[in-house]
Amino acid sequence: MNKIDFSKSGISENELQAIEPEIRKSFTKILGRQSDMLGWLDLPSRLSDDSELERILALAREIRATSRPLTLLFIGIGGSYLGARSFIEAIGASEGVCVLFAGKDMSNRELQATYKAAAKADNLYIVVISKSGTTMEPAFAFQIFEKMIHEKYVDANRRIFAITDANQGVLHDTARQKGYETFAVPDNIGGRYSLLTPVGTLPITLACGETVTRELINGALKAEQDLSNPDFAGNAAMRYAGLRYIMGQSRQVELLASFEPSLAYLAEWWKQLFGESEGKNGRGLWPSSVIYSTDLHSLGQFVQDGSPILFETFLEFAKIPNEDDLPLIDAAPVLAFLEGKNLAYVQRATIEATKSAHAEGNTPNLSLILEDFSAHSLGYFYYFMMLSCAISAYTLGVNPFDQPGVEAYKKKMFESLA
Amino acid sequence: MNKIDFSKSGISENELQAIEPEIRKSFTKILGRQSDMLGWLDLPSRLSDDSELERILALAREIRATSRPLTLLFIGIGGSYLGARSFIEAIGASEGVCVLFAGKDMSNRELQATYKAAAKADNLYIVVISKSGTTMEPAFAFQIFEKMIHEKYVDANRRIFAITDANQGVLHDTARQKGYETFAVPDNIGGRYSLLTPVGTLPITLACGETVTRELINGALKAEQDLSNPDFAGNAAMRYAGLRYIMGQSRQVELLASFEPSLAYLAEWWKQLFGESEGKNGRGLWPSSVIYSTDLHSLGQFVQDGSPILFETFLEFAKIPNEDDLPLIDAAPVLAFLEGKNLAYVQRATIEATKSAHAEGNTPNLSLILEDFSAHSLGYFYYFMMLSCAISAYTLGVNPFDQPGVEAYKKKMFESLA
Repeated sequence: MNKIDFSKSGISENELQAIEPEIRKSFTKILGRQSDMLGWLDLPSRLSDDSELERILALAREIRATSRPLTLLFIGIGGSYLGARSFIEAIGASEGVCVLFAGKDMSNRELQATYKAAAKADNLYIVVISKSGTTMEPAFAFQIFEKMIHEKYVDANRRIFAITDANQGVLHDTARQKGYETFAVPDNIGGRYSLLTPVGTLPITLACGETVTRELINGALKAEQDLSNPDFAGNAAMRYAGLRYIMGQSRQVELLASFEPSLAYLAEWWKQLFGESEGKNGRGLWPSSVIYSTDLHSLGQFVQDGSPILFETFLEFAKIPNEDDLPLIDAAPVLAFLEGKNLAYVQRATIEATKSAHAEGNTPNLSLILEDFSAHSLGYFYYFMMLSCAISAYTLGVNPFDQPGVEAYKKKMFESLA
Repeated sequence: MNKIDFSKSGISENELQAIEPEIRKSFTKILGRQSDMLGWLDLPSRLSDDSELERILALAREIRATSRPLTLLFIGIGGSYLGARSFIEAIGASEGVCVLFAGKDMSNRELQATYKAAAKADNLYIVVISKSGTTMEPAFAFQIFEKMIHEKYVDANRRIFAITDANQGVLHDTARQKGYETFAVPDNIGGRYSLLTPVGTLPITLACGETVTRELINGALKAEQDLSNPDFAGNAAMRYAGLRYIMGQSRQVELLASFEPSLAYLAEWWKQLFGESEGKNGRGLWPSSVIYSTDLHSLGQFVQDGSPILFETFLEFAKIPNEDDLPLIDAAPVLAFLEGKNLAYVQRATIEATKSAHAEGNTPNLSLILEDFSAHSLGYFYYFMMLSCAISAYTLGVNPFDQPGVEAYKKKMFESLA
């Protein structure tokens, strides 16, 4: 994190420091490994010598060397889906690599569209991601696409990869039996913290290539190093957790705001992380998101002047994405005052204007400022958010790593289906 | 609307009826035309004999008869964007018709991707939508793509269409000067209520064809007829407005929930409609959305067991989309009990399970049940929501048709850019 700016939050440095003892207690709990679900905490540094990651990089290298177009079908839901998708949507798959997702919903309409696309694909590979193998949506999708790929290719067994429990479960057993290569979902890392495990790194490396994955990991590693800093003033994760805790005393909704449409899925990943980690025992801030400037012409009205229940967290980049490209304005009558400038220039002015206007209206805000729009900076962001979220949930008095409420509808669903 | 089910809302029929006088007051205000922005109210019936619509249908027929692929670039933001996009994403463009959007954000990164795609397109048409012509994002994008299309085609003037003010403004004047065909944004219909004006009908007919547009309009017409019913018990728009008004006394966020990923933009349209109409003078429910089942494995935890600030509004279909297709389950060990069934079958069970589980948890819910996933039913939905929203905003004591808060950031932005 380049910087957290809370000058438009209405919170003073003194107020923030007053919350330090609470926040430190949570941070200490995490450093002291008081949960067995903290495998993600030192994962970036452990990856510098990880044979499974090397196997992933080598496999991706081999597959990406085959003919293009290359079509990748990723099957997974929730934490076995959002991390990889959010990163791939942000950075973009390599030229000639087409990415499809399945097993992420229960829509027969959606399934048929994906089925059609996969059936037409020339060079198809499948990665199925499910720790137990029993989650219904991916199990359903895998059954369908496994059959398809076996009908399409004689070497189908070499085109299917399973990311699942290392030792047991239906998917593990199936993969063993049929000879699909497998990668492990670690026992000590929950789905929403799993981006840097094979759950994220295999799809990402297949879609974006080895260099990008290494940058992602290096960004997370930088965050791991920076954010182990026990000094409150110098630890952005503790400070963000503190700021949102203070905000949560008068606000009910945290609104993640970005100016880049390709970050829409990053917001979805963030919503799962915080919603599932904090939303229990009647607690938690409701995580919501907007993409400006589209949403300035939509929800912006509410943010400016509606119910005072929100605070905004802007995700910004010190260097605006593609800042120096296409200075395309010439001399249209309306935009003559912008001659020679580009949208990035306008974006910068708009971000400042929006933050000021909203803060003077009904919505105070924070800014998280990353260096640039790169795999490295996003790696930093993911790690920063995971650590901030764990601190935040502990401070709220809830377990950051369980999701008991997810079972409630499943129980009823299985009763009615059985 | 096939039906509103509020059996899991915690609200009784008596409580709902007790709010009738308030709701009726708002409804009467609308029927009495106490605003000059009510042009949308009888628009569906006026379209049965509308020469501009006929001109749109004829133009689209002619263009769609040209070679495929046909690439359509729609330039607009907010109310000049979300209606058409939400419908096209839901129903899907015709085979061989590729749809691009620009002028909807300030991302240089996004602009470059769209620029690349449009530059490669074989058979490109542009529709630019802006009442004044001075909104910065579409003005910026139009300048760039207008130049591109003139470089690409000798008949560029016949490939550009402007939807703008009928008599004045920069875009109106430019189009006149250069000979682009124009269509009118009516003075008495605001952007978020403009789907059935040329703002929506031209892009939709170009993308999806004449038959689909006629179905959309017929669905809206059915709603116009049904929802003019002065009987509270028989008027779904009054009832929905009443239910959400009651909910709003204890809840801060309305969560629109659907099980169809292709409705994600319909939710965005709905958010603008309600957020911009109600979010003023410190009032309004924050409009948020989820797509299940993906989000059951994400925000579902919060909805079940987090802060009690939400109520859910399910958008359902009496006939599940693609209900009868692909009964693909055979005999996978995990899913053996679903043999011969398909995802639509599972979806139906899951919807019921989810509604019950969430209501027993921390989030009461309503269901809006449309007949089927069709242009006709969506037409009904759009009209239903516009009328419900106008009633709702009046009942809240705010003007459903202005958006003063949108100007705040613009003022600051222009100051800083000038």
